[in-house]
Formats: sequence, structure tokens, C-alpha cells
Amino acid sequence: MGGYSEKITVDEHFVLRVPSNLDLGSTAPLLCAGITTWSPLKYWNVGKGSNVAVVGLGGLGHMAIKLANGLGANVTLFSRSPEKVNDAIALGAKKVVISTDKIQMKAVTGEFDLIIDTVPYVHDLNPYIPTLAASGTLVLVGYLGELEPALNTGPMVMKRKSVAGSLIGGIAETQEMLDFCGKHNITSEIEIIKMQDINDVYERMLKSDVRYRFVIDMSSLKN
Amino acid sequence: MGGYSEKITVDEHFVLRVPSNLDLGSTAPLLCAGITTWSPLKYWNVGKGSNVAVVGLGGLGHMAIKLANGLGANVTLFSRSPEKVNDAIALGAKKVVISTDKIQMKAVTGEFDLIIDTVPYVHDLNPYIPTLAASGTLVLVGYLGELEPALNTGPMVMKRKSVAGSLIGGIAETQEMLDFCGKHNITSEIEIIKMQDINDVYERMLKSDVRYRFVIDMSSLKN
Repeated sequence: MGGYSEKITVDEHFVLRVPSNLDLGSTAPLLCAGITTWSPLKYWNVGKGSNVAVVGLGGLGHMAIKLANGLGANVTLFSRSPEKVNDAIALGAKKVVISTDKIQMKAVTGEFDLIIDTVPYVHDLNPYIPTLAASGTLVLVGYLGELEPALNTGPMVMKRKSVAGSLIGGIAETQEMLDFCGKHNITSEIEIIKMQDINDVYERMLKSDVRYRFVIDMSSLKN
Repeated sequence: MGGYSEKITVDEHFVLRVPSNLDLGSTAPLLCAGITTWSPLKYWNVGKGSNVAVVGLGGLGHMAIKLANGLGANVTLFSRSPEKVNDAIALGAKKVVISTDKIQMKAVTGEFDLIIDTVPYVHDLNPYIPTLAASGTLVLVGYLGELEPALNTGPMVMKRKSVAGSLIGGIAETQEMLDFCGKHNITSEIEIIKMQDINDVYERMLKSDVRYRFVIDMSSLKN
């Protein structure tokens, strides 16, 4: 049954402790979307008063907002979709900047210490670089391809800005993230599905009709 | 006379103290090539045992080698020119990697904590990314244009690598660099020229016939 087994044997070094106050279903995505966004937040020293922006509001993006907000940062969502404003605010964002609106983009020039870019397909990074503060970093956690159109290094050189990548995280920092989530009562927004509905749900996922992670109820497998 | 004046009046906050043991002519380029390479070395915490690579051996590159070596780092030069090996070693590099030689490039996979890229024209960064250690940074100090061919973010995401830019430095860190150079007896390799030879020297510079900075003897202006 692989990952769908009810019980598996693993080396104790790879066992994580889930805080008892957290719902197990809502905790499951923390082990991927949670740690993927937690790791760069910690590595780039986000804390109280940091200005953090998140590009894209999906499974990764909604966790980035919750975790950065939990760390005391002022969180902004970059999105192309005005209909995501209410969700973003409810999740903990202070504001939403519509990334296709040049006036809104210009208003946040030089604002962000860290931008967590969760978009998983090719997109232009150049409009985001001017919104970084001096010595700021834009970190890609969703896209692993070539940067097109070409990244313009001029604005990076002028203010010591960086473009970086980050991938999930280690066991120690995953436990740190779980403990933090327990303390701050942070979990993922999920929709529990039955195994029998997996094909319909997959179609919904392709249409981005998911808020914000599907979690399979494994007990449904016995039906 | 502008910058060629014998005396000028400046605010004391912008006056630097040159250590008395340093030759003034050889110190002049420290105020540009020196601080440009010093600033990223310090910002990215280069010290004893750090593995640093320098791309390109010109005015900036030769200072990057001297300063990184002075800080106790193991320094490697990336160059396309085998004839630069002897100079690089004499300046303090431990080795030279010919960047067009795939076998040599593969031999330094995952080696460098910091790469200082001094090349001032468009060039492919992708071959250098695999030579960075996990969490390593390639910092551009010479090129301010668009990255072509496209930067591939896959290897950056997989090992939390960064591409950054950096530009000269502030007054406080320039003084820190001068004091460090005084203590370690580090200056630029220069050729003193007369003002009357400026046009010939400019032609030589266009042909890269300079080791490694030309400095004008201002007393020649009175001739």
C-alpha cells in the first residue's frame, strides 16, 4: 500500500511529533506546503515587523501567509485575481497587491525584505524585483525551470538584491514548524475527500478549484 | 578641474584615511575595485576556510583574489584563459579552473560558498551554479544587464542557492577595507601613466592589455 498504508516502520530519526491540539487532517499539508514556506521564512530571518510578500495564493501561498503572519511579519499577497482579496485578508495578509496593476506595484517599491514566490509555472520576475527592499531576497519555492523573460540584473546589483530557490526542508526544521503551529494553532485549510472521489477531485484541482489542499480520508479506502 | 583637482573641500563624513604604510598610487583603485569586491566578501561572511571563487581576472577580479585570500579563504579563479594561471596563483589563488573545460568544471561541483562574478558583459551563469555549495551565492559585481541565456532555477531551488548583485560599498565599510589592506599590506597591481599618454593607454585598455589598473600620475598634468 506504500504511502497509503495504515502502519509503516520508519527509523526514529524520521518520525515527527504532531502537537496534540492540532487536527490531523489539517496538519497533513504542513509536512509539505508548511515546511516549504517555513524553511525560507526562518533562513531569511523573518520575524516581528519584517515585511514579507507572497506571490500566488494556493496551497503553498496560503501557508506562507499564515506562517509569516504567525512570526509577526506584515504580510502582503501579490495576486492577479481581485477575487482572492477576502481570502488573503482572512488568512492573515495585511493587504493584497494586484500584480498586473502598475500603480499598485509602484506603491510598494522597496517594501519587502523577503518575497516568497509560490507560482509553479514560468512567469516574469522582473516586476517584483523593484518591490524588494535593499538587500532583499525573492525566493522561488514553486518554479524549477528557466527564467523567461530574462531576469534583469541591473536592479539587483544596484541594491544588493538576490533571487534564490528553496525546497521543502529538513526533519529538525519540520519539527520546529510543527511545534510553532501547535503553539499558534496554525493548520492548513483543507477539504476532506473520499478515496472514491479522487478522479473528480483531480479534475477540480486542474481547474484550481481547491481551498487550499485536498486531504484523503484513508478510512474511506475500506469502503 | 573636477576629480583631477589637486585639492577639494568635502564633508568630513566622506573623508577616508589611507594607512601610512600603503603606496598612494596602488591604493587609488582600492576605492573602487577594492570596495566593490570587499563588500560582498564581508556581507556573505567570508573568512578563514571559506571556499571562494572569482570569475574573471581583471581590475575587480585581481582585488577579489587578494582580499579573499587575505581573509583566509581558499580562492579559486574561473577563467577562460590558461595564460592567466601564473598571475592568479601569484595573487593568492589556490587554483585556476578553466571555465570552458567541462571536466575541470565538474571537478569543483558543490565547492564554493561564494562566487564573485566580475565579468562586465553578458555571459551564461548556468555552468557556475552547480559549483556552488548548498546555500551558496553567486554575486554579480560587473554585469548589469539581462541574464541570457535564461537562468535555470532548478539547481537553485534544489540546494537553496542564490544569484545576487552588489555595487561598490558604503563609507564605513570602505574605511574598514582600507584598514584591512593596511594591516595585510594589500594594494592593487597598477601601472602608473602620464596624463599625456591617456589616449594610447585607453586603446590598450580596450584590448585588455592592463595589469591590473592604470593610475594617472596627476603631477604629469603640469607638463
